[in-house]
Formats: sequence, structure tokens, C-alpha cells
Amino acid sequence: MSILVVGSVAFDSVETPFGKAEEVLGGSASYFSLAASFFAPVRLVAVVGEDFPEEHLQLFRDFSIDIRGLQQSPGKTFRWKGEYGYALNEARTLDTRLNVFETFSPRIPDPYRKSDCVFLGNIDPVLQAGVLSQVEKPRFVACDTMNYWIESKPDELRETLGRVDILIINDAEVRMLTGEHNLTRAARRIAEWGPQTLVVKKGEYGVAMYHGGSIFGAPAFPLEEVFDPTGAGDSFAGGLVGYLARSRALNDESLRQAVIYGSVMASFNVEAFSLNRLRTLKASDIRRRFLQFKELTHFEAGNSL
Amino acid sequence: MSILVVGSVAFDSVETPFGKAEEVLGGSASYFSLAASFFAPVRLVAVVGEDFPEEHLQLFRDFSIDIRGLQQSPGKTFRWKGEYGYALNEARTLDTRLNVFETFSPRIPDPYRKSDCVFLGNIDPVLQAGVLSQVEKPRFVACDTMNYWIESKPDELRETLGRVDILIINDAEVRMLTGEHNLTRAARRIAEWGPQTLVVKKGEYGVAMYHGGSIFGAPAFPLEEVFDPTGAGDSFAGGLVGYLARSRALNDESLRQAVIYGSVMASFNVEAFSLNRLRTLKASDIRRRFLQFKELTHFEAGNSL
Repeated sequence: MSILVVGSVAFDSVETPFGKAEEVLGGSASYFSLAASFFAPVRLVAVVGEDFPEEHLQLFRDFSIDIRGLQQSPGKTFRWKGEYGYALNEARTLDTRLNVFETFSPRIPDPYRKSDCVFLGNIDPVLQAGVLSQVEKPRFVACDTMNYWIESKPDELRETLGRVDILIINDAEVRMLTGEHNLTRAARRIAEWGPQTLVVKKGEYGVAMYHGGSIFGAPAFPLEEVFDPTGAGDSFAGGLVGYLARSRALNDESLRQAVIYGSVMASFNVEAFSLNRLRTLKASDIRRRFLQFKELTHFEAGNSL
Repeated sequence: MSILVVGSVAFDSVETPFGKAEEVLGGSASYFSLAASFFAPVRLVAVVGEDFPEEHLQLFRDFSIDIRGLQQSPGKTFRWKGEYGYALNEARTLDTRLNVFETFSPRIPDPYRKSDCVFLGNIDPVLQAGVLSQVEKPRFVACDTMNYWIESKPDELRETLGRVDILIINDAEVRMLTGEHNLTRAARRIAEWGPQTLVVKKGEYGVAMYHGGSIFGAPAFPLEEVFDPTGAGDSFAGGLVGYLARSRALNDESLRQAVIYGSVMASFNVEAFSLNRLRTLKASDIRRRFLQFKELTHFEAGNSL
């Protein structure tokens, strides 16, 4: 099944305790697309400026990502500059230049209108709704958002969520969105608004998924070296949505596997700056780490008390 | 196999957003003993004052806990007063009165000297070592500690750890103890000092266990109502050590199951103040929640990428 993704493509400048990278390829749609492309065909809708090099376009093409929806506009590409401390759990934003992204209004190319799955990256919920209005009803819609939209456009966000099947956000965002500290109760409230599946990202602490009455919990993959957390959440979403598109099923079993494939993609992504790890990844690497996740979490239920 | 536990027995006064309790039975050894008693015979070494009521002694007896090692000394029982905010992840200590606990020097009764397993609750590492000197070599020793001892008696603690098999502490303590942010590397350092198994408690985020080259990760049990987190870590240790004593094995399989049984006991304990939930618990409740943990964490490895 095909995946339509709408989000940002950016130049990131990142400094971590382990090194730095200047003006490297980033943005939610870039991370998502590369991660998802291992599982299913991806169609990218985003905007870049005149300064966006052919080399990056070629990278997307190399991963069979359809970039007919990648608009090139007069001006400069979105730039983000940030740094991380040793804890690596939260980026400190040093500079944001929206540039051409400031007036981004996603136009869905005709050949994209019939897409099986849609991923709405973290953009204005009004634009997210606009994307959904331009496509035929997809099999499922997954969505990201952030504190900025939760605070500044709560009603518009709620409107968009009414058309979303899978909401993928972090635990602080869940609590802010619902005003509810307990995640199980928060998931029930969110389900009343629309999304029947809530995937809660907890960074180094893993993921929890709420789906109907079922809860799935998984730890993060224990890495010894994390170089750059940028794009972890988007790679996670790419692996998750990608696997669901590939498995052609949206049930408890496939959703749980999708969470693990998402975690696998996020764990690879943080091993290097920018998309450097994803671009050299092989399907066999992904499968191997998926099985390592099985080892990580397995215990025998056999013995009785 | 029998379990010898050394730790505190106290009166706790606790306030959480959901209620308060005044001068209720608490202390690390109380929580540990009740939790472990569901799995194996427990021998308790601790000190209380003249104000300790028969009713609490009877509770221990009701759970077949051997209290010949519970010294009653002139003076008052250890008292702790604390409160929790909505996040429930960290207690704010309002008052500590060590009372008879201040001069506590564990004396191991003769019939306890041959114990199969020893749990060293969170007390001065010098006293912990003193306990080990009074017993015949047990099958295994598990140990807790805290930031206070890590900072004030690092050499003595290191000495004690040389005689410990399983160290059970939280993630902040692991980082403070080793000066290493990455838990996998920290576990390797700790193994060089002695404990071949490191169990890292992460509160609402679950547990990670490092044992040889193997890593096990488990989420916390998702509860909708947490009334009082006091004693969660000690109930966890009680379930873990208790299950290991019962299974008579110390291998990767039994350790993983023990972590889950520990998580089960902790999850019950936080459902009510003091020992109120543990005292009404049945073995069938424990088994049921263990199987719910299996459902919580299970995913199929079948499908190929």
C-alpha cells in the first residue's frame, strides 16, 4: 500500500556531546520517508527553497521516494539549529528559520490523491485537515503534532483528530492535550475524539500503545552509543506506518509489530547524524534488530506460582 | 529456599493527591517481607521501638514471616513523613526521625545464619557487609542502596558490592554510582565490581535488567489509579528475590520471570496506602497479573520484512 507523507524538509545544524553537523538534511518528512521507504512506496509532500541541492533530491530518488509533491519555492529552505546535552532526551533549539516553510500550503499532486495511508507530520492542524480534504478516503491516517499546536490551535487540532486513526505523540504531549496525567485514561479520552490508536513515545523509555482495550508496552532498544536523537520520532513513525502499509492490516497483532519496527528504525537513526545511518541500512539489518527486540522483551510464562 | 532480609521497619505518614495516611506500617523490610512471603519463607532482621504494636507483629506472623530477628529496643520506632505530587515519581521528604534505627546494628539470630538468599535493604553499606559476615555463604545476595550512601560512603559501598550478586537500584542511582550515563556501559562497570546482575528500576517506565551479555526490558504495569508509590521499590525487590528463591534457579530465564513478578508486586502495592493491598492479595491475583504482563509485552515475531 502507498503512503502519502506531508511534513518538513530542512537543513539542520546539530551539536551533541559526541560531535556536530552543519546544515545537513533533516526535517520530519525526510526522516519519515527514508524510514518508511524500507517497507512501502512513499510519496512526499513538502517544500524546499532554491538552495536545496540536487544531491538530496537524488537521495530521495535512490530510496524510490516519489518527490513529485516536493515543491521548490523562491527563497531559502527551512533551517533548524539545536543542541543536546548528555541526557540526549531534549533538544535545545538555538535558531529556527522557517523560510519557505512559513507559507507552506500542501498541494497534493493528482497522482497522490488516491493513497492508501496518510501520515500528517507535525504542521499546523489546519494544513493537516487541508491535506485530508485533498485526498480520497485513505485506509488509515496517522498524525503527529506538538505542544505549540496543542496550545495555540486546540480547536483546530481537535477537528483534525476527528479524521485521524493513529495519533503518534510523546507522553508530555498526551498529558498536555488531554489534561490527564494517567496515560490509560488519556488514551480513552483521545479515542472519543477520533484516534482509536494512541502511540505514546517516551524516548529512551520506549513506547506504549493503546488500541481498543489493549495496551502494548515496549522498551527502547538499548544502544551503547547514541550520537544524535534528531529525527528519532519521525523515523519511528516511518517504521510504524511503513510496516502497517506493508502488512496491509490494521489489527492488534500488526500494530504491535509496527511499534517494534518503528522502534527499530528510530534506534538505527540515532546512531549517526542526519540520515547517515538510514541511508546505509539494509533490510537484513532491520530484521535482525527486530528479532533482537524479541530477545530483549521475552520471558517464559510457563512456571506457575 | 529461605530469604533473610535486613532493612527498616517504620511508621510512615504519607500524603498523595489521592489521600493521606498517618503513622501506618512501612519501611523497606516490611514491604520486602510481605511481597516475598508469597513466594518463599522470609526471615526478618530489623529494629523497632517500644511503641511498636502487637497488631503489626501479628501481621508479619500471619504471613509466616519469621520475626525472631526483629529487635525491640528502648525508644521510638523510625518515623518517615513524605508527600507526592501528581507525577508520583518522587517523594518529598517532610520529616525523618531515625529514633531506634539510628543505632541499629543488625544481629543475625543463630537459626538465620544458614539462609539461602540474603536481601540487604537500603542501610549503611558497613552494616550490610556486617550482615554478610554473620551468615554462611548464601546461594545469592541481592542488595539495594541509595544516593546518600553512594555519596557519603563510596569505598565502603564498593567493598560491600564485591560480595553482592544482584544489585537492584534506580536509574539515577546507577548513573551516580558509576559516573556513566549509558546504562549498558554502567552495568558492565558494576559487573567488574561484583554484581553480575544489575536490575534498574525506572518507576512508571518499567525495569531493565543486565545479566552477562543479556539485556531484558519490561514496562511497568499500566494502572489507572496509583494511590501511594511508597514501598514500590521494596515490593519489587520482594517479588524478584522471592521468585528466585522459589524457583531455586539463578539463570536468565528465572531472572526475567523474577523481574516480572517483582513488577507485579510493585504494581499491586501502589494501589493502596501502606501494606493494605499486599495484605489482602491472593496467589491467584499475582498469577493473573503475571499473565497480563505477558499480554502487555507480547508481539509476534513471525512475519518477515
